Amino acid sequence: MIIVPENKIGDLMTRADSFAAVEKVFASMAKGSAYNFPVIREAIGHADALYGFKSGFDRSELVLGLKSGGFWPGNMEKGLTNHQSTVFLFDADTGKCKAVVGGNLLTALRTAAASAVSIKYLAPKGAKVLGMIGAGHQSAFQMRAAAEQRDFEKVIGWNVDPAMLSRLEETAAEIGLPFEAVDLDRLGAEADTIITITSSFDAILMDAQVTGGTHIACMGTDTKGKQEVDAALVGRATVFTDEVAQSISIGEAQHAVANGVLKEADIAQIGAVINGDHPGRTSDDELTLFDGTGVGLQDLAVADAVVKRAVEAGVAVEVDF
Amino acid sequence: MIIVPENKIGDLMTRADSFAAVEKVFASMAKGSAYNFPVIREAIGHADALYGFKSGFDRSELVLGLKSGGFWPGNMEKGLTNHQSTVFLFDADTGKCKAVVGGNLLTALRTAAASAVSIKYLAPKGAKVLGMIGAGHQSAFQMRAAAEQRDFEKVIGWNVDPAMLSRLEETAAEIGLPFEAVDLDRLGAEADTIITITSSFDAILMDAQVTGGTHIACMGTDTKGKQEVDAALVGRATVFTDEVAQSISIGEAQHAVANGVLKEADIAQIGAVINGDHPGRTSDDELTLFDGTGVGLQDLAVADAVVKRAVEAGVAVEVDF
Repeated sequence: MIIVPENKIGDLMTRADSFAAVEKVFASMAKGSAYNFPVIREAIGHADALYGFKSGFDRSELVLGLKSGGFWPGNMEKGLTNHQSTVFLFDADTGKCKAVVGGNLLTALRTAAASAVSIKYLAPKGAKVLGMIGAGHQSAFQMRAAAEQRDFEKVIGWNVDPAMLSRLEETAAEIGLPFEAVDLDRLGAEADTIITITSSFDAILMDAQVTGGTHIACMGTDTKGKQEVDAALVGRATVFTDEVAQSISIGEAQHAVANGVLKEADIAQIGAVINGDHPGRTSDDELTLFDGTGVGLQDLAVADAVVKRAVEAGVAVEVDF
Repeated sequence: MIIVPENKIGDLMTRADSFAAVEKVFASMAKGSAYNFPVIREAIGHADALYGFKSGFDRSELVLGLKSGGFWPGNMEKGLTNHQSTVFLFDADTGKCKAVVGGNLLTALRTAAASAVSIKYLAPKGAKVLGMIGAGHQSAFQMRAAAEQRDFEKVIGWNVDPAMLSRLEETAAEIGLPFEAVDLDRLGAEADTIITITSSFDAILMDAQVTGGTHIACMGTDTKGKQEVDAALVGRATVFTDEVAQSISIGEAQHAVANGVLKEADIAQIGAVINGDHPGRTSDDELTLFDGTGVGLQDLAVADAVVKRAVEAGVAVEVDF
């Protein structure tokens, strides 16, 4: 059994590897050769924690396993991140546990890779302005991955707490892009690529605020009740997602489907675009929206990639199990 | 993170520890301080494997985690056991993975402990004849654990393939008890404690075959469609189980409930008897039946116990994670 500790992931895993792993598994999902198992999520009644698993099997790559962990809101004051994840991979031929991999950084990388994949396939080819809604820890990961997909000239951003916008400014500077804090009217009007990465339970970006050909990647909504953008905006967009079942139940599309402005059948898997089975964006002034709900197969794909890197680099800890 | 490899479990874990762990967690379940999460079980479409997880949280002991694994029918010819299990324990205060434990032997021990707990609390006090139905790998574990709960004078057994009865005979000899192969009429009439441990999809032991005060532990039925004993037998017994929800859906009681000869409300948790909240057996000539469906909390309880033993014995492998 191979162990890849959390503190080794940063040196081993690149954005490029994460992107490739997520792109490939999204394609496999759309082909039907990879599927996610039902998600378990439990409020355990201790430490205010939410705990659970996301799991699945990619038959084409023989990647089988689960990500286990959750959200422990009291961790911060203990010097730990609130989200704690561990990925376990199993030998698909025998069922034996083959790897235990720290899942915290991997989760950030796979989430960023998902919106980047959507930008590669769906954003206007000539996109120049990246709009960021949300400035929490994950926003920097999303921006870095997004910036590699188009020749952006500028990043504009909004956050419910403006004091946190410095994170977006610093990340843009690191990438070499100017940053401007804007209101939501300007953000919706000027950005041609928008990423929402918040924990909001109410629509932040409204339909009327978004003009022109735009791609929006909604990355924050992963629970019943959460919402980042106006249901009417989702209703008039061409909508793509990682997994349709999650999109309509716990993703951003849940509200548009409930309101009747979007039909489940109108939501396409991003993997179909990757595979060439869906045209994706068909004109420059189209509004596309990617509902990134986060699936277990993404976690397994990046964990599998990092295990290979760890073995190549000779830093994998092998334990006789 | 502590690793306890499969090949260390045999030296570390005793039947007594397994019994204590399972008895305690059954009690916690009945008190409502421990609960199982939904079970995931998937036919993955590769290697004819069934893969899944059983998981839960014992708030009183702060034991949180899952058992992952499944059934790989082609393993035997690779020199591996077909059932492969690994238990993962998490720190309930932080969500960090705290132990990875080989789960194969533990599964056998916790399954045996469950029927032994039921015998302790439900079998006639003066039980003398242990009847075994089924002579597969697991039957030896069940017999050894059962034999410690009463002063049995004899073991009698039946198996669909009589050639396998040698396992029961050898195990009885190891315990120091005489063994006799019998037909099901004699088994039901003479045994006052019966364990069924088969993979049957049809009733083996019929209602009319069981006479007198008897305790039956049905340990083989863990899937929709499986069945070990006549639904009428279940219907006239005082029925106990590890978890009622599993008992009526995938346990032995599924058929009696479906036939209308047993009501869900008439099934008691064995933990209620352990806690003194249910009288259990009330007369020597009562028919009691324990429907042992197998819950994740049993796996977590024995894994937690073996981690403590491994640490005490200095054989736990510690990995910086």
